Amino acid sequence: MAQHNDYLKTIENNLWLTEYDRNNLKISYRIKEIIAQAKSDFQDIMILDSYDFGPMLVLDGVVQSTALDGAIYNEMMAHVPLSHHPNPEKVLIIGGGDCGVAKEVCKHTHVKTIHMVEIDELVIRLSKEHLKKVSGNLSDPRVHFIYDNGVQFVSGVADNTYDIIIVDSSDPVGAALILFEMSFYKDIHRILKKDGLMVCQSQSPVFHKAFLRQTFDRIGQLFPITKLYWATIPTYPGGFWSFILGTKKYDELIETHFDYDTQYVNQSLLSTCFELPVFMEDIIR
Amino acid sequence: MAQHNDYLKTIENNLWLTEYDRNNLKISYRIKEIIAQAKSDFQDIMILDSYDFGPMLVLDGVVQSTALDGAIYNEMMAHVPLSHHPNPEKVLIIGGGDCGVAKEVCKHTHVKTIHMVEIDELVIRLSKEHLKKVSGNLSDPRVHFIYDNGVQFVSGVADNTYDIIIVDSSDPVGAALILFEMSFYKDIHRILKKDGLMVCQSQSPVFHKAFLRQTFDRIGQLFPITKLYWATIPTYPGGFWSFILGTKKYDELIETHFDYDTQYVNQSLLSTCFELPVFMEDIIR
Repeated sequence: MAQHNDYLKTIENNLWLTEYDRNNLKISYRIKEIIAQAKSDFQDIMILDSYDFGPMLVLDGVVQSTALDGAIYNEMMAHVPLSHHPNPEKVLIIGGGDCGVAKEVCKHTHVKTIHMVEIDELVIRLSKEHLKKVSGNLSDPRVHFIYDNGVQFVSGVADNTYDIIIVDSSDPVGAALILFEMSFYKDIHRILKKDGLMVCQSQSPVFHKAFLRQTFDRIGQLFPITKLYWATIPTYPGGFWSFILGTKKYDELIETHFDYDTQYVNQSLLSTCFELPVFMEDIIR
Repeated sequence: MAQHNDYLKTIENNLWLTEYDRNNLKISYRIKEIIAQAKSDFQDIMILDSYDFGPMLVLDGVVQSTALDGAIYNEMMAHVPLSHHPNPEKVLIIGGGDCGVAKEVCKHTHVKTIHMVEIDELVIRLSKEHLKKVSGNLSDPRVHFIYDNGVQFVSGVADNTYDIIIVDSSDPVGAALILFEMSFYKDIHRILKKDGLMVCQSQSPVFHKAFLRQTFDRIGQLFPITKLYWATIPTYPGGFWSFILGTKKYDELIETHFDYDTQYVNQSLLSTCFELPVFMEDIIR
């Protein structure tokens, strides 16, 4: 058994990436080839070509985004909040180094400016070059890349700046943990316009119920309207994934003729994603 | 590394069940203990207590049903068809050895008779005894257990016998393959009453697109109304799972006050499960 690193091993002439989830679950993907591998100041970065999911971005051994299913997450993070705002012109994305969320936001022509704050420039560079199915090799002039720590960045932004803020964080461990803290959400709330709204991913409703509830409660303390929605993402452990929308004013879906080129979300799913299975209703009851 | 069988291994003092999906994906569950293990005339049967999903039924190394998420599949197989029929009295279940579908059907008081045709009596016995969270140790007098081959059984049933037929098969390999054949569906159609309806599971819309399409087309050749619906099942590879409803007459949801004790489905999801993501619409377009 040849070991490339903790996650990538050759077993009987096949290369396998194994993702460990909370010590109880392992998901292993058969890999065709290592497209890129690098160590940035922040994390281990790999772009691997997998048999099932095509090229995938892997950070510290955790699958972030794949050619096959990356669109699901990115579409749900972008189109759901944008479809709840009548005129979103200025959008801030925190994280989202694979550029997929920004690519989806760019489909909305009324958006004038997108600030994308990602701490790890190398993730963006490698995703643009090697994960084009997700990133679209993003080069829209409305996107301004800012290589900075998200918490530090928002603390320096003036009040009432953005229409929409999308917090596209990785799992709440290590450096990303602060992106789920109350102090961070307070800054998000402060720099949103008076009718602004935010969205964040809130982990698995199967494996992280307490964390989801805590995040929902924190956003609920700041925003008059807080809503949970969900999608299914094959490469995220447990399949189910949750998202939280915090909105200062707009409560209803404004989009009525959704016809962007997408792989997952359509006009129906923009609404039905808020219809929760019983076990998810129970989490926020 | 101590090897118990092809699927179950002790690695560094922990017991792991590894499920292999099409040679490209492996899902491994950390196991607390082996509750039961047996070899029937038809398959290897294990009931394992897992850390993440509690007790689980494993047939030939493939997870069928777990205490945590078995309800999702069983509820979607039972309540969706039953909620499309105004007066389902006589129900046939083919397969479903974990007894979970039958348990859900029993929640409907207007159902008078349930014939459950399962080839492997041992699966039923072990599930009733060791997988109570799924089977409910089913003992409802309306359920008649018939230990027989499903294809053989339906061929001997008179025309116009059942209101609803639920085909709860395992994956279409080996003996279960015939449960997806046209000849079998023809018998199903024949033994359904003139306003009857059927449902079957139709595999992963991510990994088995061609198979799903073929099943949808076959049922569509026999039934005037054929509808695809979906759910998310954490222990099924890819998370997404698909189901097909074939109905002779009833097209609309009849249930309007769904209030059974469930873990996944509720009144909203009875409808929204038919709202397909774009990539699933594309499969049957």
